[in-house]
Amino acid sequence: MTTDLMPNRFRPGDSVLPEREAELIARRDAVLGASYRLQYRKPVHFVRGEGMWLYDPDGRAYLDFYNNVPSLGHCNPEVNAAMTDQAGRISANTRYLEPRLVDYAERLTATFPDEIDRVVFTCTGSESNDLALRIARLASGGEGVIVSSYAYHGTSAAVAGVSPNLGEAVQLSPFVRMVTLPGPAGVPEAQAAAHFEAEVRAAIHDLKRRGIGVAALLLDSIFSSDGVWTDPPGFIAGGAQAVRDAGGLIICDEVQPGFGRTGAHMWGFQHHGIVPDLVTLGKPMGNGFPIGAVVGRKAPMERFGVTARYSNTFAGNTIGIACADAVLTIIERDGILGHVQTMGARLHKGLEALATRQPTLRAIRNAGLFFGIDIGAPDSAPAARRKLALDLVNALREDAVMISTTGANEDTLKVRPPLICEAGHVDLFLSSLDRALGSISL
Amino acid sequence: MTTDLMPNRFRPGDSVLPEREAELIARRDAVLGASYRLQYRKPVHFVRGEGMWLYDPDGRAYLDFYNNVPSLGHCNPEVNAAMTDQAGRISANTRYLEPRLVDYAERLTATFPDEIDRVVFTCTGSESNDLALRIARLASGGEGVIVSSYAYHGTSAAVAGVSPNLGEAVQLSPFVRMVTLPGPAGVPEAQAAAHFEAEVRAAIHDLKRRGIGVAALLLDSIFSSDGVWTDPPGFIAGGAQAVRDAGGLIICDEVQPGFGRTGAHMWGFQHHGIVPDLVTLGKPMGNGFPIGAVVGRKAPMERFGVTARYSNTFAGNTIGIACADAVLTIIERDGILGHVQTMGARLHKGLEALATRQPTLRAIRNAGLFFGIDIGAPDSAPAARRKLALDLVNALREDAVMISTTGANEDTLKVRPPLICEAGHVDLFLSSLDRALGSISL
Repeated sequence: MTTDLMPNRFRPGDSVLPEREAELIARRDAVLGASYRLQYRKPVHFVRGEGMWLYDPDGRAYLDFYNNVPSLGHCNPEVNAAMTDQAGRISANTRYLEPRLVDYAERLTATFPDEIDRVVFTCTGSESNDLALRIARLASGGEGVIVSSYAYHGTSAAVAGVSPNLGEAVQLSPFVRMVTLPGPAGVPEAQAAAHFEAEVRAAIHDLKRRGIGVAALLLDSIFSSDGVWTDPPGFIAGGAQAVRDAGGLIICDEVQPGFGRTGAHMWGFQHHGIVPDLVTLGKPMGNGFPIGAVVGRKAPMERFGVTARYSNTFAGNTIGIACADAVLTIIERDGILGHVQTMGARLHKGLEALATRQPTLRAIRNAGLFFGIDIGAPDSAPAARRKLALDLVNALREDAVMISTTGANEDTLKVRPPLICEAGHVDLFLSSLDRALGSISL
Repeated sequence: MTTDLMPNRFRPGDSVLPEREAELIARRDAVLGASYRLQYRKPVHFVRGEGMWLYDPDGRAYLDFYNNVPSLGHCNPEVNAAMTDQAGRISANTRYLEPRLVDYAERLTATFPDEIDRVVFTCTGSESNDLALRIARLASGGEGVIVSSYAYHGTSAAVAGVSPNLGEAVQLSPFVRMVTLPGPAGVPEAQAAAHFEAEVRAAIHDLKRRGIGVAALLLDSIFSSDGVWTDPPGFIAGGAQAVRDAGGLIICDEVQPGFGRTGAHMWGFQHHGIVPDLVTLGKPMGNGFPIGAVVGRKAPMERFGVTARYSNTFAGNTIGIACADAVLTIIERDGILGHVQTMGARLHKGLEALATRQPTLRAIRNAGLFFGIDIGAPDSAPAARRKLALDLVNALREDAVMISTTGANEDTLKVRPPLICEAGHVDLFLSSLDRALGSISL
C-alpha cells in the first residue's frame, strides 16, 4: 500500500468540473510537481479573502472553519499594515544588529514559563522541528525520537522521517518509535497517564536494546493529526519524565496548539503542567507570513549554538518580525484567549445539542477552537466511517463551509476556524453541519 | 577543533563598542539562541535600507556589496507594492486553486531548458535542497551524495549533513563524499574536467565499496563557499555524466548563482552546458520574501510525488508568488542580465588595475556580479592570508562598505552586490578597497 493517507483530496474523475476549474487543474498538473494535492472532490478556487471568508471568482463566499494560519482572519488589515510599513523601512538579517528583532524575542519569550527564555527564528514549522531535533540530538547525545502513532511534524527529510501520518510512501527513520495514545486506544481517563508512561518506557527500552540513546519525546500537545486528544490534563507528564530520566529532551510542537488556539493557555503544553526543553512554533505566528521559531531552555540552546552556527537567511528578517509582533499585540490587546474559550464553548454546546438529534456525531472533543468530531456509529466498519466523514466534508464544501478530516482512520472531522470567529459564524457552521448530516445517506 | 569556520564574526572583546550597540548585544545574547553570529569585529546596526544602501541609527550610509537576497535593491518599491497589493486580496495555500500560482510556475519554468518543466515551491533554499535530496533518494534508490569539499547547502539536518563548510561542530552524513575542485587544487584549466571527473568517479567507487548507491551530485554551479570557481566552462560535465551512469541525479543548487547573478545566464548551470535533473532556488527569488523552489524534470518529480505528498504550509502562498513574479518582471523588463555583465566587467577591470598596484590582490575571479578575490602572497602562511582578508573586510566596514570572506581558507574576499548597482557604486567600492589596502599593515 502506498497511500499518502490524505482522503480529502481531489482525484481526476471525482466530479464534473466547470470548464474554468478543469482548465486551471490541467495547467497546474502540467507545471507543478506531482506531490501537490487539491482538497475536496470538487476543488475550491479562491481569489479573495477577508476575515472568516474566502471568495471564489463568482463572488460566492465560503465560511472558513479550517485554516489555522490566518488565525486573526484572512488579510488582517493590522498585520498587513505592519508588514507594509516595515517593508518600506528595512528587512535586515540577523547578522546585523536590529532592535526590533530583540524587542520581539523578549516579548515572545515572556509568554513562556521562566525556564524557557531563548529563541531561534526559522521560516516554517518544519524548519522549527528539524532544528529542534538537531539541538536535542546534540544536547542528549542520543538519536532516538518518540512520537505519537499518527504524528505529523513536517516536511524536511529528518522531520518527515518521524511523521508516521505521511503514510507508507514516506520512509520512517530507523531511530523513531511510535507510542499509542490512551484516547484512540480506548483507555479510560483514569488510566491514561499510566498507559502513556508505559508506552513511552517500552519505546525507550526498545531503542536501548538496539544501542540507540533517546534524543527526544516530540509531541504536538493537542495531538491534532491523531484526532485531537488533549484530555485528561497532565496525562503526558509521566512519559515525559521517563524520557528525561533516560537523558532525552521534551520537545512540544506548538505549530497547531500555539498562539492561543486552545483558549485556556497561550501554549498547549500548559494544559499538561509540564515545562518542555524546546518548543516549536509556526503556522499562525505571522498570520500567514512565513515565520517560525524554536523557543527553549538555555542549556540545550548553548550546547548546540556555541559550536554550531545556524544561519537561516530569511529567518528573523524584520518584515516577518513586524508581522509576528502585530499578531502578538492583537492576541494580547483583544483578549483573544478569552474569546476563543467563549466561542469554543458555544460551538461545543451547539455540537452536543446537534448530537442528540444526529447520532452520527459519535464524540466531540475540543481544546478551545480546535475540534475533533468522530463520525459514524462505533460498531460500523472503519472504511464506512471514513467514507461518511469524507461525504460530510464534501457536503459542507458544497454548502460553502470549509473543514476537513483527521485521525488514524480519518473519520474525525477537523474543525479549526480562525480565532476571530463570532457567534454568528459558529451558528452558521452548526446549521450547515445539520443540513449536511441530513443531506447524506447515513 | 570545533570551529564553525566563520572568521568574519564578532567576538566579545574584539572592539570597544558604543554603549548603544553594547546594550543591544547584551539584550540579544540574553534572549537569542547561542547559534546566532554577528558579522564584523564591530557589528553593524541598521534601521533603514534603500537600493544599494543600508543606514545606521545615526544616518550613516553603508554601501552594500555583500547581500544577494535583495538582488533588486533594499526595499525595492515595485516588489513591495506587489506584496502589499496581494496581501490585501488573498494569501491562498496550494490546496486551493489559485491562478496566480500557476501563472508564475509557467513563467518560471519557461526560463529553464525544455527538459526542466516542473516546480514545487518551498520557503527557503535549505528547504529546496532538503526536498531535492528526498526526491533524488527516492528516484535513484541510492543514499550517497557527492558535494564539493567546502560546500554549503543549508541548515536542515539532512542538508547540514552534506555541508562540510559548517565545520567540525556539525556532523557530516555517513552518506556524503567530498570532491576537490580543480581550481583550489591548483590543477591547470586544461586538466580541470579530467580532474573533476576522476574525483567524482573515486567518490562513486568509495560509496559502492560500502554498498551505498549514488543518489545525487549536488553542486552550487558558482562554487561560492569554495571560493568562487566557475571556469573553465563545462568542467563539471564529465563528472555529472559519471553520476548519471551510476544511477544518480544531478542537482544544481542555484540559490547563489540563480536569477541572473552570473550575468551571462539566468541560471549558473548554463555556463557548464549541462541540464540537471533538479534545480534548487532560494535567496533572491522574492527579493527578501521567504520563497524558494525545486524545479526539475518530470520523471523524478513524478516518482516522488505520485506516492508521497509534500505539503508545505506557507510555500507557494500568493504573497510570496506576487513578490517572485515582480522580481522576474524586473529582471526581464530591465535587462538585468546585460546590466550585470556590464557592471561585472567594470568591476573586474577596476580590480585588475588595482592589482597592478596592490599585489595583495592575488587573483580575481568572477561570474557576473559574484566575485572571489584571493588575498595575500601565494607563499605566505594560510593563517596570515586569512588574517589579512579579515583585516581588509573590517577596514572596509569602517569605511562603510560591506563585503565578507569565503573559500576553504577564508582568504578570498566575497563580493556580491545587489544586481542593480551602477558604475558609481562600483567605482566607490574600488576606491574604498584601495584605501583599505593602504590602511592595513601588509
